[in-house]
Amino acid sequence: VAYNVVVVGHGLVGRELARLLLGGALGLPLRLTGIASSRGAVILGGPGDLVHLHRIYREGGGLEDHPGFREGLGPVEAAVLANAHVAAVAIPPSYVTGEPNRSIVFGLLEHGVSVVTADKTVPALDYDRLVGEAEARNLYVGLRATVAAGTPAVDAARGLRLREVRRLRAVLNTTTSYIVEQVEEGHSYREALSQARAAGLAEPDPALDTLGLDAAAKLVILSRLLGFHASMDAVEREPLESFSEDAVRAAAARGLKVRMVAEADYARGRYRVYPDALAPGDPLYASDPGEAAIVFEVEDSQVTLRGPAGPAWRTARVMLTDLADYVAHARLVERLSPGE
Amino acid sequence: VAYNVVVVGHGLVGRELARLLLGGALGLPLRLTGIASSRGAVILGGPGDLVHLHRIYREGGGLEDHPGFREGLGPVEAAVLANAHVAAVAIPPSYVTGEPNRSIVFGLLEHGVSVVTADKTVPALDYDRLVGEAEARNLYVGLRATVAAGTPAVDAARGLRLREVRRLRAVLNTTTSYIVEQVEEGHSYREALSQARAAGLAEPDPALDTLGLDAAAKLVILSRLLGFHASMDAVEREPLESFSEDAVRAAAARGLKVRMVAEADYARGRYRVYPDALAPGDPLYASDPGEAAIVFEVEDSQVTLRGPAGPAWRTARVMLTDLADYVAHARLVERLSPGE
Repeated sequence: VAYNVVVVGHGLVGRELARLLLGGALGLPLRLTGIASSRGAVILGGPGDLVHLHRIYREGGGLEDHPGFREGLGPVEAAVLANAHVAAVAIPPSYVTGEPNRSIVFGLLEHGVSVVTADKTVPALDYDRLVGEAEARNLYVGLRATVAAGTPAVDAARGLRLREVRRLRAVLNTTTSYIVEQVEEGHSYREALSQARAAGLAEPDPALDTLGLDAAAKLVILSRLLGFHASMDAVEREPLESFSEDAVRAAAARGLKVRMVAEADYARGRYRVYPDALAPGDPLYASDPGEAAIVFEVEDSQVTLRGPAGPAWRTARVMLTDLADYVAHARLVERLSPGE
Repeated sequence: VAYNVVVVGHGLVGRELARLLLGGALGLPLRLTGIASSRGAVILGGPGDLVHLHRIYREGGGLEDHPGFREGLGPVEAAVLANAHVAAVAIPPSYVTGEPNRSIVFGLLEHGVSVVTADKTVPALDYDRLVGEAEARNLYVGLRATVAAGTPAVDAARGLRLREVRRLRAVLNTTTSYIVEQVEEGHSYREALSQARAAGLAEPDPALDTLGLDAAAKLVILSRLLGFHASMDAVEREPLESFSEDAVRAAAARGLKVRMVAEADYARGRYRVYPDALAPGDPLYASDPGEAAIVFEVEDSQVTLRGPAGPAWRTARVMLTDLADYVAHARLVERLSPGE
């Protein structure tokens, strides 16, 4: 028995994940039955549909080049038409209004579709409702790809639940680390940002990275997983640019690295995202701009986790790990409710 | 609704966990209904039983000082008599015969009792059977306390499933790190070992630590969680003492730390535990002997995790995190099978 998957979002991550699923999903019992972009969707029926999709990925076309593309078909309707058991959501964030992300994710759950997501919007804005609605319907929600995808940060936070976690300090936004590297090499912030965007590293809206919204969302999700009632509104944010270009270069000349640091002081309920110049002895220090790092201050000691965050191909792999957990969950539910 | 817990094993970890459960289990819906030691068990009925238990913990007595102590009552029978939903197993390992650990854990599962364990014996020797029998009965098995309890190593390994993990290198046995520290300070191996045993750090059988069995079991469990078919038999082991006392001191004089390193090369299927002199630049290097460290080589990069391993009070806290997951599992099962 295979489970039907719809991929929601056809950017770099969505395309990589669709390709992994088409290529056998590393042996998982999963079948890609639909893909939705922001403009429409394709429901995958016969083998002909797959042939067209393979050609699009080989030749670099868009979803709308598929003959089965249905303009204006929304992700939730697509999931229903595709008989999806689970949706893999990889769409751009929307922290101001929460839309259309909120409607998509809650619409999927209302239709009995489990969700694995790389998008942080809903877990960051509506964590309790997300977990509550999934639980009420015995559905699975996978969040591994929302924080430092590639490094098991979500798993680590889950594993520290009920422990005495006093403080968290982390580098979670690698786009700003890449921007800093460009500025160190003599480019302006403006040039560095457009390069990052061109390389597919920056969010479409650069403010998400440099104003700290991306890091704030990740800080909120980790804090929620640890059991704290964090919210986006409560995170104080300082923009990356509060370090001038010259200040970034002066720090580099002294062997320091400017990084967007996300910090939570749980005793005081204080959450902050701000640029800081890290010294080599700091457990968050990394010369590689693609590396994420987290220090959890737990009880009388520290737990440190570091590793890669992205790029898109790795994020897609992490979503597949979530899908493996979805399969285990779905099998348990099936064994227990044989009537359905 | 509260779930009944029986604590199996009344050493340092079992006592700490029993005290946590008596003290309210940090708000989890858990009720301690029985405790088993190697000599017998107590089934906790009325409030009087709890008063006696509190007094034993306050005054430092043994389980046999409880008026309800039933000599010779085994852990499985105790779990049945205590109407246990879940057992927390913290007994000494038994890697040679696997007994009585195997009979206890599989006996519990056969009687429909979920298991969280700090003991590595069964997951290291019988991983497939353990996971299979639990799954077949829709029971929960928690392994967080088996590897580097205090640092979410088990969670991290789970989070890296289906990724391309090429190699693992780790310091997992902290008892040998403490022994090395004593040897560095001029003591002999023999003195260091008896000190470690007196401090409750070493396993009752010191060979488990210095001959690498403890580290090998942890290496096998992490490898299994990652999806590899590791077994205890396949782990090559070199004893700590293959570094002479003088060699340990000479390494320290050069700024190095001798540590028992556990290593898996998954491409070659080679598993090793051996003492090595680590330099400060090594991601496994730590001057604190109580610290565990793991480097996962994944795809084109490294994931590094470090943090505390033990002591007993922390291990008990980690078992409580497993018990929280047990509660979530039990609630899902109840929602889906209302008839039971």
